[in-house]
Amino acid sequence: MGRALLDITMSLDGFVTGPGADLSHGLGIGGEPLHDWIVGEQEDADRMALDRTMAGIGAVLMGRRTFDLIDGPHGWSADDFRGERPAIFVLTSSPPSRVRLDGWFTFVTDGIGPALKLAQDAAGAQDVMIMGGGHLCRQYLYAGLVDELRVHVAPIVLGDGTPLFERTTLDPIRLVPRETTSTRHATHLTYDVPDREQR
Amino acid sequence: MGRALLDITMSLDGFVTGPGADLSHGLGIGGEPLHDWIVGEQEDADRMALDRTMAGIGAVLMGRRTFDLIDGPHGWSADDFRGERPAIFVLTSSPPSRVRLDGWFTFVTDGIGPALKLAQDAAGAQDVMIMGGGHLCRQYLYAGLVDELRVHVAPIVLGDGTPLFERTTLDPIRLVPRETTSTRHATHLTYDVPDREQR
Repeated sequence: MGRALLDITMSLDGFVTGPGADLSHGLGIGGEPLHDWIVGEQEDADRMALDRTMAGIGAVLMGRRTFDLIDGPHGWSADDFRGERPAIFVLTSSPPSRVRLDGWFTFVTDGIGPALKLAQDAAGAQDVMIMGGGHLCRQYLYAGLVDELRVHVAPIVLGDGTPLFERTTLDPIRLVPRETTSTRHATHLTYDVPDREQR
Repeated sequence: MGRALLDITMSLDGFVTGPGADLSHGLGIGGEPLHDWIVGEQEDADRMALDRTMAGIGAVLMGRRTFDLIDGPHGWSADDFRGERPAIFVLTSSPPSRVRLDGWFTFVTDGIGPALKLAQDAAGAQDVMIMGGGHLCRQYLYAGLVDELRVHVAPIVLGDGTPLFERTTLDPIRLVPRETTSTRHATHLTYDVPDREQR
């Protein structure tokens, strides 16, 4: 069974979007620099990080707002996939009545555990990527269901927006740094997340 | 005039201590791994980051709780300084009636701007280091008074504690990455903070 990877970009102060994120401003007010490492003039380490983001991914998990963006007018198209398109699972309490990218998505309403199970079954030997938003990511992280954490830290203090983390009474999570690369657009951090027993 | 450097360690989720930090547990519950890069089995990049932390520093600025720790029973001693001890300025609304390290500290009660001015005068051509806690650091950062930001990101998600950042309605602060090194104990990030006009 493949691993569960969490791969997300945040500001130094921990926001994955600026404030006021909506369908036409997915990254919120002032949040565009978060993705300079993806859409800007990439350095080699940015390209390598991006190549790795989708490498070996057999299924993707996302929350409802991330789906709304991706299925929205400024969202994804078939051209966004060089190789095979992974299975995409959307966690939501209320599946949408209409979908632009018909047939791309499977909607899951019974929680993060079952959704991960479905995604891992679909991915086979490949990995599952948890791609956002912040709320879904931290649910998986705090539940101990993430095997590898990739955080791209953009060089900006946003001050407000959608947080990746939040205060929690759970035990601290020790991470094992595996690789760090850095460019003028982002610091790409990769950590292994040990199983709870091993922490 | 020297620059104002902010140099602090935080968890990946932005806490500079765990919860319940007090005089006998300066790093709070579960917060000890924050300082593994300082007191643990250091790698070369940890040693270099630590050497640089105090290099060329002519004065230090700290908040009241940081002073309480440093002047407390588990705090600093003269042995902690290989070279000359920098001038130390403590921002507080109520200076303490007794000080263990007599003569080490100057207490400033009229705000972060005047305190920085005093520290810069004392430092001469050398730099001023803003060393904590989180509240003082973000006041200086958000006020646009920091020239260089050094954040040591420890590989841990603490979940609770003293935050370095907080939500603010101020404009985002673009940073210019200058150097990143990484060990199993910490990722050492160094950013220039451009003047507001240049952001």
